[in-house]
Amino acid sequence: MPLPYRHLTSLMMRYNGGSILIDCGEGTQIAMRKVGWSPNPVDIICFTHYHADHISGLPGMLLNMGNAERTEPLLLIGPKGLIRVVNGLRVIAPELPFEVQLMEIEGAEQTFEFDGFRLKAFKVSHSIPCYGYSMEIDRAGKFDKDKAEGLNIPLRCWGILQHGENVEFEGRTYTPDMVMGPERKGIKVTYCTDTRPTDSITGNAKDSDLLILEGMYGDPEEADKARQKKHMTMQEAARIAAEAEVPELWLTHFSPSMNRPADYKAAVQEIFPAAVIPKDGKSKTLKFAED
Amino acid sequence: MPLPYRHLTSLMMRYNGGSILIDCGEGTQIAMRKVGWSPNPVDIICFTHYHADHISGLPGMLLNMGNAERTEPLLLIGPKGLIRVVNGLRVIAPELPFEVQLMEIEGAEQTFEFDGFRLKAFKVSHSIPCYGYSMEIDRAGKFDKDKAEGLNIPLRCWGILQHGENVEFEGRTYTPDMVMGPERKGIKVTYCTDTRPTDSITGNAKDSDLLILEGMYGDPEEADKARQKKHMTMQEAARIAAEAEVPELWLTHFSPSMNRPADYKAAVQEIFPAAVIPKDGKSKTLKFAED
Repeated sequence: MPLPYRHLTSLMMRYNGGSILIDCGEGTQIAMRKVGWSPNPVDIICFTHYHADHISGLPGMLLNMGNAERTEPLLLIGPKGLIRVVNGLRVIAPELPFEVQLMEIEGAEQTFEFDGFRLKAFKVSHSIPCYGYSMEIDRAGKFDKDKAEGLNIPLRCWGILQHGENVEFEGRTYTPDMVMGPERKGIKVTYCTDTRPTDSITGNAKDSDLLILEGMYGDPEEADKARQKKHMTMQEAARIAAEAEVPELWLTHFSPSMNRPADYKAAVQEIFPAAVIPKDGKSKTLKFAED
Repeated sequence: MPLPYRHLTSLMMRYNGGSILIDCGEGTQIAMRKVGWSPNPVDIICFTHYHADHISGLPGMLLNMGNAERTEPLLLIGPKGLIRVVNGLRVIAPELPFEVQLMEIEGAEQTFEFDGFRLKAFKVSHSIPCYGYSMEIDRAGKFDKDKAEGLNIPLRCWGILQHGENVEFEGRTYTPDMVMGPERKGIKVTYCTDTRPTDSITGNAKDSDLLILEGMYGDPEEADKARQKKHMTMQEAARIAAEAEVPELWLTHFSPSMNRPADYKAAVQEIFPAAVIPKDGKSKTLKFAED
């Protein structure tokens, strides 16, 4: 339930000029503007599931992209039912100046490859079909200048090789492996909400630089309720983060009845010290590690 | 477009324990909570038209009413297409513990009678079918105690007569006209948004205690744009208020590009001095006039 000072849960990731949004509830476009971001560069919207608090903001978001005269296509990714749900909601957003592409996730997990990054959707456990997402940005190996010079590779070919492509020049073929070191650790962010703890979450959380999980309840007495409603307690989320050995956990999707989520900080950090209980608009810049 | 500090336009009227909402855009439920009101007592939601900024908050509103375990039916009133639009949006709110009744407005105007008040919908002029609404609360004449005593009407019948009903007691029939003065002025509120000026607005605004009109644009240079986009300037709204001789006009539905609507206050008050350019959450209690 959206509250005056707590917007519905969603994640926006910006990379290389484009943006990816996961979930779009009522007011997500307002939350976005509050932090000074715009819906216009969003290329992809992923949905975890089709409960209203995760998709009710879609028609307004589409219309505002249209008002901004967007012409680039928008890709929507979500569990089976995406076409039916989006068609239903588009009764109030029937005409848009851009194409809306729909991709329904198949099976227990599916990886979508994009230019420079990939999105992996993996099934979690809620009252209706629901997926978590990992975004992974690859990082090429280090360019070895000495090797390139030693092999007499012309300077004009270096950039192409650094981008991972073969190049033919004056009758000779150069390949990236001649000059590039082994692939380095990239960046990975994993986001799951509206789910019980699952092995799929722990498995996919591994190697994430940032893990974002729901922590619907904080009071240990609500553990039964969490089980019944197919949600997680903050403590359960913290245990996943500990097992996956991530450097940082953010909790989100707090119950509207939880007045001060930060009250549970100490209890959660006892299980996983690097747990954060953020307020609306929390953001972080993730960078490639220093070599 | 909903903005961080400016919610979408809607009106909530509370009367006799029930509430009526006109329009329900994305975030209306949040705006409602910000002023400390609740969606639970809402019995009727009227829609002016089906552009997303006037109805996109409906699924979330329905679900929150459901979460509050509402069982009383909810009546939705709106232009033709209501059934199709609500069915589309309910793809994300399919199961509710209460009945949703749908009433499509017929013709250029239609009056809906309720217990103690009526709602009149009248056609206005926008790019798609759109209606304005007047809410009218009747007020009975004054009870004449001397007359009642003169006619020897038993004390226990007075209350029934005051409520406008006939009463039979010990073989005699008493009727309200025996003891009640002529009907007194009640309360009337008229609300129109997303429209060009029309005679129907001026006509229905007459005798309103409060008139609420859109003032999408304030700059006189935007008069052409207003005509094209089928909206009104603040000055056009002020002229309607002046012609209808209402005691008070509130302007609303400001363009997102209008940073400080109050900048146009002086210009508007030159045409109609009792014009108000309110901020979010503006409310007013209207009372029956002193006798």
